[in-house]
Amino acid sequence: MEVIKAKRSSLVEQVALQIETFIESGTWPVGSRIPPEMELMEQFGVSRNTLREAVRALVHAGLLQTKQGIGTYVRAKTVLGASFQKRLETSTLLETLEVRHALEREAAWLAAERHTGEELNHIQKCLHECKEAADLHSFAEADIALHHAIVKASHNRILMDLYARLADELHASVHDLTDMNGDPDIDPGAHEELVKAIGARQPEKAAAIVSKDIARLKEMAGQEEKE
Amino acid sequence: MEVIKAKRSSLVEQVALQIETFIESGTWPVGSRIPPEMELMEQFGVSRNTLREAVRALVHAGLLQTKQGIGTYVRAKTVLGASFQKRLETSTLLETLEVRHALEREAAWLAAERHTGEELNHIQKCLHECKEAADLHSFAEADIALHHAIVKASHNRILMDLYARLADELHASVHDLTDMNGDPDIDPGAHEELVKAIGARQPEKAAAIVSKDIARLKEMAGQEEKE
Repeated sequence: MEVIKAKRSSLVEQVALQIETFIESGTWPVGSRIPPEMELMEQFGVSRNTLREAVRALVHAGLLQTKQGIGTYVRAKTVLGASFQKRLETSTLLETLEVRHALEREAAWLAAERHTGEELNHIQKCLHECKEAADLHSFAEADIALHHAIVKASHNRILMDLYARLADELHASVHDLTDMNGDPDIDPGAHEELVKAIGARQPEKAAAIVSKDIARLKEMAGQEEKE
Repeated sequence: MEVIKAKRSSLVEQVALQIETFIESGTWPVGSRIPPEMELMEQFGVSRNTLREAVRALVHAGLLQTKQGIGTYVRAKTVLGASFQKRLETSTLLETLEVRHALEREAAWLAAERHTGEELNHIQKCLHECKEAADLHSFAEADIALHHAIVKASHNRILMDLYARLADELHASVHDLTDMNGDPDIDPGAHEELVKAIGARQPEKAAAIVSKDIARLKEMAGQEEKE
């Protein structure tokens, strides 16, 4: 009896880990629907109950999301990303901006030291799209892409993981701020300066630009709270 | 049929969330054994299967750990902490040190700005214990306590959450380094300078001391890789 229990538990865990691998590797991208139950039961060679339990564990972890009557979707790429997002949802804007500062400053520094030519091209392309953006929505998309490109050029996978969630979460809150203040959420000049510093391999300067820009956002957040 | 499935799934999720609350609030501390199955079934008013499924979801998330024939233990305080720890386990020492730098630098800066008198007393007490440590083991314990005290004085709960796991993980790897190099893992002078800068409310200086100290560790890590 004890043996069967242990076996069943580890089978669920194995299936859950297998699904996690599909998600983390991008085989099942964020936003996509996972294959039908029957197909997965066959693929993993497990019963419906085992599969469902594994799926529920991943729903709880925030990786999957079940929409009643529609299907199960991939919600986040890594468990770290999902739990970081949950944590951010219960944090103040000021706390979030401080963590953003910590990660972005480090990423800018490392990107200035480590970027490849290809990565710099991509960063510059994102900057160009920021400048060309016709409205706030397309600016926000280009802006997120630019920040991701910089974090990617840091070559630090933990920073990428954490930052992926932070950027999504942050954008919503920073948008609230900027809507109220009628200001673009990032000073476009700061973007340009940052990319220039990274391209010129000036880590200290890149970090200082990030610090200055986030100090500005923190000040806006502080005013918001007082109003 | 569909309704029953949905209900059951949400019951498991409710129990899992309830257990998470007990753990995050410290009602069930890290390292402790959770109450017996029968007691929890009664407390939550659920069947053995529902309870077990909730427990397995939390084992998967890294919050609980089941030791066959002994019981179920609390392994980590938050899902974020647990998943961060898992992520660190698959990262290089250099990546971990860079993330540590990002978080510790921010924490030192904020602690210098925000610490209360009581928090500063505690930080100074931890520093004193570092200096008095008779062996490497007690030094390591005092060192972790000092870093936690500084992060706590930052008043940023996300930093505390992330740093809690990082410190545990880091200590193991830094110890490996120092064992090989026969060096204490932290320059005791750097500790003292850091506490002085925080006490004097000099955020920039505190941040610079952290940066310098971690640059030293990164260099040691680099030498390690070459050897």
